[in-house]
Amino acid sequence: MNECIQVRAPGQGLQEITALIKDCVSRANLREGLCTVFLQHTSASLIIQENADPSACRDLESWLCRLVPESDPIYTHTHEGPDDMPSHIKAALTCSHLSIPIVSGRLGLGTWQGIFLWEHRHRGGNRSLLVHIGE
Amino acid sequence: MNECIQVRAPGQGLQEITALIKDCVSRANLREGLCTVFLQHTSASLIIQENADPSACRDLESWLCRLVPESDPIYTHTHEGPDDMPSHIKAALTCSHLSIPIVSGRLGLGTWQGIFLWEHRHRGGNRSLLVHIGE
Amino acid sequence: MNECIQVRAPGQGLQEITALIKDCVSRANLREGLCTVFLQHTSASLIIQENADPSACRDLESWLCRLVPESDPIYTHTHEGPDDMPSHIKAALTCSHLSIPIVSGRLGLGTWQGIFLWEHRHRGGNRSLLVHIGE
Repeated sequence: MNECIQVRAPGQGLQEITALIKDCVSRANLREGLCTVFLQHTSASLIIQENADPSACRDLESWLCRLVPESDPIYTHTHEGPDDMPSHIKAALTCSHLSIPIVSGRLGLGTWQGIFLWEHRHRGGNRSLLVHIGE
Repeated sequence: MNECIQVRAPGQGLQEITALIKDCVSRANLREGLCTVFLQHTSASLIIQENADPSACRDLESWLCRLVPESDPIYTHTHEGPDDMPSHIKAALTCSHLSIPIVSGRLGLGTWQGIFLWEHRHRGGNRSLLVHIGE
Repeated sequence: MNECIQVRAPGQGLQEITALIKDCVSRANLREGLCTVFLQHTSASLIIQENADPSACRDLESWLCRLVPESDPIYTHTHEGPDDMPSHIKAALTCSHLSIPIVSGRLGLGTWQGIFLWEHRHRGGNRSLLVHIGE
């Protein structure tokens, strides 16, 4: 089963989407299986992180922005703006797909794990995700 | 088919778990399929690396600890200790799930590939992994 | 269904392999499913990146080579040459497997997404990929 879902990213940063993915799993109505989430963009990422304390996500964002700053003379791919190439690099260092087993009809996340869409562009926008659920 | 396995991580570093995953594949008794390993934690990683020479894993550990040091004034998420935020960042830069095809009843790893649990906390502990095997 | 495909990497850099993977998907003749590509090596990566403008891939390569330079006294695993350990680190920071949903018989890539083999060794060589296609 495949679903295409749209998420509106307001701008740079992590946004929890666990509830959206859980809804897809509920609709699939499968006891055991595998849920794969795939992001159809190269300037944002999907990530599983701690969802208990928002400071973990904020620090993650600060750290990666410092590692991949906008003003770097190494970039030649700059026609879409100063956040274009850093976004591709950040996406390359993280993931654009996640696969999570479904156990007893529920997503097999650990106690403190949440699924996040990590937007790397300033302006954000609509992001398309494909959710595949199989046995 | 899903299995939940527990691995005891003695502390920071890479620990090979290939044999454990091969055992799951044997029990599934499938000629062709896909094996997905998912880690239910956000301060450790799963990684496929060279298992012939242990110096490759040690260098990997040293390099990442230098890139993501504990004493960094950028961190605000520090209440669980100085290795807390570095662990989340290291997990974000690596993977928490792996998918490996099953070919002729065996895990399709290359000659020098091993599967490792990469613990990022000093104290380690029990880590839960879900292993999904599907067609 | 599994296929093993060989790709000749001429040396360091990104090489688009989207057409090869699309061919596998066509042969599988499945309306809905999941395509997983797995690389059987630890000194190269698989990555989804922008395939419209080659400067994005070149900048990605330059940036990662600067982050993980060859002449680093931290390396002890050096007997296969100065590009050996950097290759393992680069592979650890990126991915060795990709999972992409199949929608209406086609790979569910976004408009600007391409699949690339990212070779990290200077000399390159033949690289083996397993492509699994399941429901």
